[in-house]
Amino acid sequence: MNEEELEFEVEKIEQLIEKKKFNDLRQYLEDVNSADFPQMLEEVNEEQILLIYRLLSKEKAAMVFAELDSDIQEKLLNALTDKELKNVIDELFMDDTVDLIEEMPSNVVKRILKNIDKTDRKIVNELLKYPEYSAGSIMTTEFIDLKESMTVDDAFTRIKKIGLQKETVYNCYVLSLDRKIKGFIDIKNLLIAERTDLLKNIMDENVITVTTMEDQETVAKMFDKYNMYALPVVDKEERLVGIITIDDAIDVLQDENTEDFEKMAALIPNEDSYFKTSVFTHARNRILWLLILMISSIVTGTIITKYENAFAAVPVLVAFIPMLMDTGGNCGSQSSTLIIRGMAMDEIRLKDFFRALFKEIRVAILVGIVLALFQGIRIIIQYRDIKLAFVVSFSIIGTVMMSKMLGCILPMFAKKLKLDPAIMAAPLITTIVDTCSVLLFFNIATIVLNV
Amino acid sequence: MNEEELEFEVEKIEQLIEKKKFNDLRQYLEDVNSADFPQMLEEVNEEQILLIYRLLSKEKAAMVFAELDSDIQEKLLNALTDKELKNVIDELFMDDTVDLIEEMPSNVVKRILKNIDKTDRKIVNELLKYPEYSAGSIMTTEFIDLKESMTVDDAFTRIKKIGLQKETVYNCYVLSLDRKIKGFIDIKNLLIAERTDLLKNIMDENVITVTTMEDQETVAKMFDKYNMYALPVVDKEERLVGIITIDDAIDVLQDENTEDFEKMAALIPNEDSYFKTSVFTHARNRILWLLILMISSIVTGTIITKYENAFAAVPVLVAFIPMLMDTGGNCGSQSSTLIIRGMAMDEIRLKDFFRALFKEIRVAILVGIVLALFQGIRIIIQYRDIKLAFVVSFSIIGTVMMSKMLGCILPMFAKKLKLDPAIMAAPLITTIVDTCSVLLFFNIATIVLNV
Repeated sequence: MNEEELEFEVEKIEQLIEKKKFNDLRQYLEDVNSADFPQMLEEVNEEQILLIYRLLSKEKAAMVFAELDSDIQEKLLNALTDKELKNVIDELFMDDTVDLIEEMPSNVVKRILKNIDKTDRKIVNELLKYPEYSAGSIMTTEFIDLKESMTVDDAFTRIKKIGLQKETVYNCYVLSLDRKIKGFIDIKNLLIAERTDLLKNIMDENVITVTTMEDQETVAKMFDKYNMYALPVVDKEERLVGIITIDDAIDVLQDENTEDFEKMAALIPNEDSYFKTSVFTHARNRILWLLILMISSIVTGTIITKYENAFAAVPVLVAFIPMLMDTGGNCGSQSSTLIIRGMAMDEIRLKDFFRALFKEIRVAILVGIVLALFQGIRIIIQYRDIKLAFVVSFSIIGTVMMSKMLGCILPMFAKKLKLDPAIMAAPLITTIVDTCSVLLFFNIATIVLNV
Repeated sequence: MNEEELEFEVEKIEQLIEKKKFNDLRQYLEDVNSADFPQMLEEVNEEQILLIYRLLSKEKAAMVFAELDSDIQEKLLNALTDKELKNVIDELFMDDTVDLIEEMPSNVVKRILKNIDKTDRKIVNELLKYPEYSAGSIMTTEFIDLKESMTVDDAFTRIKKIGLQKETVYNCYVLSLDRKIKGFIDIKNLLIAERTDLLKNIMDENVITVTTMEDQETVAKMFDKYNMYALPVVDKEERLVGIITIDDAIDVLQDENTEDFEKMAALIPNEDSYFKTSVFTHARNRILWLLILMISSIVTGTIITKYENAFAAVPVLVAFIPMLMDTGGNCGSQSSTLIIRGMAMDEIRLKDFFRALFKEIRVAILVGIVLALFQGIRIIIQYRDIKLAFVVSFSIIGTVMMSKMLGCILPMFAKKLKLDPAIMAAPLITTIVDTCSVLLFFNIATIVLNV
């Protein structure tokens, strides 16, 4: 839904409310995709939100609820009666209930837990125990379980009976009596099989599983690689305890990408969206790295003062500091971004270290020479000073080499230390290269220009 | 599969080849997930690749083939006989065939087209006409089409008959006689319905569709938002011509993320992986932006020389240039990254311009004051010079304000001009802020320090 469509939709709804045409509104709302509600509800006032929400059918209400931002969820839950709240929770899938509990304040959580069925409450409590960012924390317990001895027809009967409450019927799992996975059946294979076939004969025994404690990023990448729609999660005893569906995997992938973007820009990652984050939190997330980087650029500044004599004799030297610093920063940013992203996409592995470094060195030579020639020629034309041209050109080549090598080495080194390579990105590399390039530049200048 | 598992797998295979136990190898290979083959085949020699590939069953061979990198695909196709090649192409889904043709050199394409069935060739030729990055170019034509008048039982019969050749059976589409979409049925709803129900009564008439010319990034984001597994693609006459499946959407999302990372690091985006790209291409993709940014930092340098008198009188001024430049760059990088990512995730819209700008200004004031205090106190302690502390602190606040405002304004401005906001990222903002902050700094210094 783009901005114009949204405006049209909201206007239509407000008109219907104003004219008190609630039956028309109810029908109209049923046809709006539940994923479009969050945007829409942002445009109307709180009273209208509650009115709209109460007009929805039970199923639709739950679907819409699962899509909403946590602040709107909280407002709604506070306004709903216990009975209405129970209706919502009953319809939510287990993983959405758990997400909700994790985000609500304690008084709301109490009301939620009070209104969950006893058996469900037990499952929810189990799910809440899994650490954040683990496979267990994003899985749902609502999957289709079948038995080896069933026929295809038996399977269809079971799916018909329990399918509605399950998050997906696309992938079904064949379990032993002690709930270990014996095999996996894609619904496609069930549909094209003969009715009398035994599941044991059509199931795929090579099932890819993850454990409950697996990192969610690893899980999300497996979806990307293996083109699966659901991934079974097993406990320590290898019993199937849940599944992760591809829609949750996409959310994880996008969140991890956002986190990398933030880390690479010297930000402390933040889970809330831009506008949901307070000014104070924004500032806090930015200051830490700025201070660290500021301290290291003070070092560069201090080094410069040591060469006071040089730039007192040849003041134009100072004019090249910004160019050298920027070029080093940009070159380092290019290399580190390619290496960090390559590792995130599993295209570059630790064992490729020397291969990557050799590649960066060759690229640096080419890039360095082009930039050095460009500056050298400019300086000869502008200042008619071959010595100065040599100093600057040589410093550029050195700076490009250093920054590209560091851009390759540091992220891979971080990975080796099991740190996130994304922290070794442009800002950090820039400050390191700054110091080195300034040192190199003034040393060459001192020698060549005799100052 | 991690590095150790891969090593184990490759060793096992090489042993079996050495001992010529081809039957064991054949069985072993059938159990390896087809998505693991690309990595595995990278570790063995060309002869072994061909041997391994020929041992695979027809279906497995096609699945593996679709996963391979284009250079290995090319080598394989060149080594296969026409009959073997025809087997591969027959088993590939239409969208994979089209991808293959787009990446192979013309002599291989000729052989492929020669070995495609006549009807399929017509479809492939149609698909090849869609522009790159359009919905049409990533869709497949193999979907399940049903009719309104069918019962659930009729639908099952049809799926059983044609399902095997279709890329997905999870989502089925109900078409009119002229192939316009009347409704959509999730296989789950088909499975839980009564056998005698008419499709017309159980289908969902609110079908989200895209046109063949829609941008693939927009399509991928719709998957993220609407939690769909397949998205129908219609032509200008609103006839259903294909579907896009979620696995292809994930690939697009990841590619678009990579592209943003690259653009934000002053790189010309590149589709090939890091190692598949030649040193020369790497260099070419990096030089353009480096040259552009270098030219603008020459401006900064030239401005500095205008203040020769100032730093001749107070040489320590030069020491603060790196710190101001880095702080400006990092602050701009933080803001632009948050704004660019926020727009990419549809959390920040153009109409939020003033809201975002106001937020950045408040954050900048907080961040600026903290950094200014830190530097001010350090300078008073280190240099015992309150005037200098004032000059630097005030310049920091100005620099932070400018860089955070530009980091917000420029990406949104680019979006307004229908350019990719990612080009207005750290490198470009850094060079702009550099010039401004140096100007600000020396102007304040000239006035306050009377130089």
